[in-house]
Amino acid sequence: MTRVMQPIRLLGIAGSLRSASFNRALLRAAVEMAPSGVQITTFDELAALPFYDGDVEAAGDPIPARSFRAAIDSADGVLITTPEYNDGTSAVLKNAIDWASRPPQRTLAGKVVAVMGASVTPSGARGGIESVKRAVRRAGSEVLDEQVAIPSVADAFDADLQLTDPLIRAEVAGLVATLAARARAASEEKLAA
Amino acid sequence: MTRVMQPIRLLGIAGSLRSASFNRALLRAAVEMAPSGVQITTFDELAALPFYDGDVEAAGDPIPARSFRAAIDSADGVLITTPEYNDGTSAVLKNAIDWASRPPQRTLAGKVVAVMGASVTPSGARGGIESVKRAVRRAGSEVLDEQVAIPSVADAFDADLQLTDPLIRAEVAGLVATLAARARAASEEKLAA
Repeated sequence: MTRVMQPIRLLGIAGSLRSASFNRALLRAAVEMAPSGVQITTFDELAALPFYDGDVEAAGDPIPARSFRAAIDSADGVLITTPEYNDGTSAVLKNAIDWASRPPQRTLAGKVVAVMGASVTPSGARGGIESVKRAVRRAGSEVLDEQVAIPSVADAFDADLQLTDPLIRAEVAGLVATLAARARAASEEKLAA
Repeated sequence: MTRVMQPIRLLGIAGSLRSASFNRALLRAAVEMAPSGVQITTFDELAALPFYDGDVEAAGDPIPARSFRAAIDSADGVLITTPEYNDGTSAVLKNAIDWASRPPQRTLAGKVVAVMGASVTPSGARGGIESVKRAVRRAGSEVLDEQVAIPSVADAFDADLQLTDPLIRAEVAGLVATLAARARAASEEKLAA
């Protein structure tokens, strides 16, 4: 019997809005390095979501929140890159996670999630990564222990925001592969259940 | 010599947007219970701030960010109430902290800050409180160890969102008094320096 492998679909989300953001550039590098059989689609409209507000939610999910849920629903796994602002993640990213976590859909529940972070400081955005992991774990996602934390990130990119550091390129490619493998296994577990 | 005591001015900030939010009601209770000589002004426009974006900032602080900085500048101390969303604080609150933290002004640096939290769950919003404390500490504020964490918050309020639980009323009044005393001491230290 020939088994046709479906491509693994990953959703990529960057937590910074600045157009020349290193985190967005990092996500682009991950997309470019995705191996055969792995498709990474990015969701770039996080800033269109309003701040979470129970009154707004009671009137029905805003359209950008529905779009974000649909993007997560159609993915086998989620790859997040986060900056670090005041020892935590960005508000725009936390807000999107909060909307997507809400019942009854709990769209993030059961999703396999990997987190990367980059900062121009020596921290490697570890405070940002940690707060993202806490949030998605609480939202019911399966969070990979593996992560990529990049300190002094400006040194890893060239002037055109291409990721040139070979070690970090390999780390990013490795995380994508690990996420894809885990997402494939999770999908197969669901099919078998 | 007669010493005229200036009133201690505290800025109150609630991290929830829902009109019937328990956190907003908790802040109102704190305002009502403020002792003589302590004025609490609330800043209710957090949702007017855009998501932090380095490109927006480079074009000049948005007007709501300037208003928020000015409100903090004119206060001797800051009283924050936070909900808990996915084991952290709300995006609308984190976003405001991030804007106010930015250099060169670093408006939160040196401010005395106290944090309360309330949740309908047994957690007492401790994850939210912790993430707020981490953020404002990193922003350079002096954060009180004392806090008020209210689990099962619906039981503490009546149908008109008045805080009726006598123990929690005393806890809130105690935290306000501690914050005011610490803010007064910090102001006097600055004058003496």
